Amino acid sequence: MTTPDRTRRPFVLDEAIDILTRTPAVVGAMLRGLPEHWTGAHEGGDTWSPFDIVGHLIHGEEADWLARARIILEYGESKPFTPFDRQAQFEAPKGKTLPDLLDRFATLRAERLRELADMHLTDADLDRRGQHPVFTTVTLRQLLATWVAHDFDHIVQIARVLATQYSDEVGPWRAYLRVISGTQG
Amino acid sequence: MTTPDRTRRPFVLDEAIDILTRTPAVVGAMLRGLPEHWTGAHEGGDTWSPFDIVGHLIHGEEADWLARARIILEYGESKPFTPFDRQAQFEAPKGKTLPDLLDRFATLRAERLRELADMHLTDADLDRRGQHPVFTTVTLRQLLATWVAHDFDHIVQIARVLATQYSDEVGPWRAYLRVISGTQG
Repeated sequence: MTTPDRTRRPFVLDEAIDILTRTPAVVGAMLRGLPEHWTGAHEGGDTWSPFDIVGHLIHGEEADWLARARIILEYGESKPFTPFDRQAQFEAPKGKTLPDLLDRFATLRAERLRELADMHLTDADLDRRGQHPVFTTVTLRQLLATWVAHDFDHIVQIARVLATQYSDEVGPWRAYLRVISGTQG
Repeated sequence: MTTPDRTRRPFVLDEAIDILTRTPAVVGAMLRGLPEHWTGAHEGGDTWSPFDIVGHLIHGEEADWLARARIILEYGESKPFTPFDRQAQFEAPKGKTLPDLLDRFATLRAERLRELADMHLTDADLDRRGQHPVFTTVTLRQLLATWVAHDFDHIVQIARVLATQYSDEVGPWRAYLRVISGTQG
């Protein structure tokens, strides 16, 4: 009997849906009700605040993930994806509050996951190929795995933006805090 | 009028307590009910799984943060802190399930924050100094700010461990996913 590899998981659609379902609750637990000087904090320059990040997650639900899945299923490699607008979140949310954005993200995510479940994707469907504007060939499985990893990427980013606000306040402990010192360990 | 600095926040006790209160819900939303091959996944070698990380957070509530705060308030710099056992989480949780650990963490965190509130700490108290075994002098304010940043450090770690399980499945998108590619941006 071999030891199972604990560093890689194969893509399993039900597990991906389970994880994607959780993200609005994770982000909400981190941010809902937090003072605006925290939710609008960033890492300097053009870096994103938690508010910006939630706007970006909303735009992904509106314009990216499931839209690209549909292009793969309908057109395969004959129609490249529309490039994703990574600045869109700075336009749409003007005048909105963070609770508005969190609600919108939760609603859209639930809708998208119902639509995904309704596609009844088979393994053969997951192997279908589409054309990414930069990478050229990608599979539907890779797209859906990336949706999951992209959520985690932005959960990391929110936690990092918030933690780094205390970069000075933690004093000498800074060296032990990977989220602040910038090392991964 | 100067633009407010959006990259640093001063330590404010009520805000720190607000953030610390959220962590059991954040970690629970990420992990509760997730299959064991995900919650036991790690990054290879001696790296920690989400299960290990929750065990480490529990040990912090039991032995570290508030215990050190009490040493500062009672003894100041005359009594160094007991070094923190970073391996403790591998002993205590044997035979426990992840839901057990998540419940235990939530209970302990709520108790510790009630105890912290009952200390009615003043600004003068936050300036009080203690003796860290490595850094020598630290303040109570730095200790409490580190408690907050340490939570974020491990939220980042949980998200990273889970995301990297899909390192292969995401295919060429790997280059765009900072949580997998290992860059911070």
